[in-house]
Amino acid sequence: MRNRAWVITRPNQGGYSPECLRWEEREVSALGADEVLVRTLLLSLDPTSLNWLKLEPSYTFLPLAVGDVMLGAAVGVVENSRASGFERSDLVQGMWGWEAYSAVPALRLRHVQPSPDIPLEARLSIFSHIGLAAAAGLLEVGALKSTDVVVVSSAAGATGSLAAQIAKAYGNKVVGIAGGEAKCQLLLDTFKLDAAIDYKAVNVGAALAKACPRGVDVFFDNVGGAILDAVLANMAMGARIVICGAISQYDLADSRSAYGCRNLPLMLFRRARMEGFLGSAGGRDAEFEALLRRLYTEGKILNRSHVIDGLENAADALKLLVTGQNDGKLMVRVSQL
Amino acid sequence: MRNRAWVITRPNQGGYSPECLRWEEREVSALGADEVLVRTLLLSLDPTSLNWLKLEPSYTFLPLAVGDVMLGAAVGVVENSRASGFERSDLVQGMWGWEAYSAVPALRLRHVQPSPDIPLEARLSIFSHIGLAAAAGLLEVGALKSTDVVVVSSAAGATGSLAAQIAKAYGNKVVGIAGGEAKCQLLLDTFKLDAAIDYKAVNVGAALAKACPRGVDVFFDNVGGAILDAVLANMAMGARIVICGAISQYDLADSRSAYGCRNLPLMLFRRARMEGFLGSAGGRDAEFEALLRRLYTEGKILNRSHVIDGLENAADALKLLVTGQNDGKLMVRVSQL
Repeated sequence: MRNRAWVITRPNQGGYSPECLRWEEREVSALGADEVLVRTLLLSLDPTSLNWLKLEPSYTFLPLAVGDVMLGAAVGVVENSRASGFERSDLVQGMWGWEAYSAVPALRLRHVQPSPDIPLEARLSIFSHIGLAAAAGLLEVGALKSTDVVVVSSAAGATGSLAAQIAKAYGNKVVGIAGGEAKCQLLLDTFKLDAAIDYKAVNVGAALAKACPRGVDVFFDNVGGAILDAVLANMAMGARIVICGAISQYDLADSRSAYGCRNLPLMLFRRARMEGFLGSAGGRDAEFEALLRRLYTEGKILNRSHVIDGLENAADALKLLVTGQNDGKLMVRVSQL
Repeated sequence: MRNRAWVITRPNQGGYSPECLRWEEREVSALGADEVLVRTLLLSLDPTSLNWLKLEPSYTFLPLAVGDVMLGAAVGVVENSRASGFERSDLVQGMWGWEAYSAVPALRLRHVQPSPDIPLEARLSIFSHIGLAAAAGLLEVGALKSTDVVVVSSAAGATGSLAAQIAKAYGNKVVGIAGGEAKCQLLLDTFKLDAAIDYKAVNVGAALAKACPRGVDVFFDNVGGAILDAVLANMAMGARIVICGAISQYDLADSRSAYGCRNLPLMLFRRARMEGFLGSAGGRDAEFEALLRRLYTEGKILNRSHVIDGLENAADALKLLVTGQNDGKLMVRVSQL
């Protein structure tokens, strides 16, 4: 059976170019023991894909090299199985190659219970590493308290928008930072945030001082760099800085062009904590999944997906994340259920 | 009764000058209710004194202003008391003015149990905010585990040398960073550290990579700036960065001259935690005091004090902390017991 795949040609050294990936038509791999042949339905494109493409072991949990098929989170349907517990037509999600068909070790898959209330896209936009990162970052790493003033960067983005909505559902005051008037309007009108700061239009530090006169208690950060620095200058005593991402620093040509953060000494005077985490944290996945389900059912978190049609467009579509041009969780529709 | 005091004349705006303080002879203040008249024996000079002198509320827990007597940790003897529980000749320690005699609210004092084994200087160098910061930073904030590789900056300094010695007493591998050959020799010969890095002579990042090939698990930081950045680049997975001080950033003319830290995105990929704290943390003071007592009795932590004679020299002596010229915990002998 013919397959189509994106194969890594060279490391991403900053200023991501789709030429890091090569479109290849090839035969579907033979299925090994305990492997499942999955037909890809939806493929998640994430900011961290840019890091994985650096091909440095410290940036990913599965080492990638030139010649490998690019990896990502995905939803698919089982075509064939040599693993117990998985049968033809099962709906699954997990982590596998950017390809039409993938032979995936069963350990990297889990079943998706079909539900008429949950569109397939929401499996990637909410019931995925995205939703778990938002919940774990806010509740476990950020240790959210009811009186906390919460600031979220990239608040119109996939993870940020969920973190902001979860904090609103908990009744907290939430200020979102995003780029451009349209995104800021979305934060106010759709997510009902208490304030929105357009980092392209205003001085973020001054706007934060105005929006959070008693300081920021929890900062859910997806961008790093100058915005992180501005929030550090506005921390309340005992602030928690949740480092979920640093997209402003992912696509640099070298570390010399990295932003230099000047306000770290304030970590001392504000007795603040900063913590980086990847995906879930603290073994509370089941609790957070139940929370996401409840909030989604209650209409308190929304499925917002930006779907690109066709696997052949995946390498180009990744550029949208660099420029922030995606509107909702970016994903590629590879085939129909 | 005549008193002598250092009065604040203007805020320290970086590049500390003793002219921030004015030597004044004046009458001893009348004793209020619940106050104790203390004759100062030893006065602690700390890096954070430079911050307090900035007269910005966010840098101190007791707001200071022009015209106030400068504040510090101190040891003294009770001359007179209007507070129950304190009597003439009692030995006390606490926080009071840079003056020969001070009327101190009893709430800011605690008794010192005289002991022939503990010299008065050790009350400031070990059994004080210094020892508590070292123990709490390492054990509570740093959550030290037996397999952790520990790095300490300003490892020949008052707090750093205690943190390094405590970690050695726990059996950890400890690498110290200090400025100059003599200090590095002290780290190896006296404190028996596993390695010493002279930040004035070598590239700290390269030296750390060599000394800690599997990465740094706990960093007890007193200096901030470029050294913090170099350690961030060498963090092990799950590293804990304990921010006890940032002396390299205390004496700057303005925030534009602050060091820009470029390696913060690694907090994400290494799932690292950074936490600032002041003095003790987590309500474990009694436990940590007992630990300090035991380690001191066993000869595992040493009393190293740099004593300047005469209160009149205090304002000048503070400069030694800016240049790192003190050898041990800096303090001023104001009077003899």
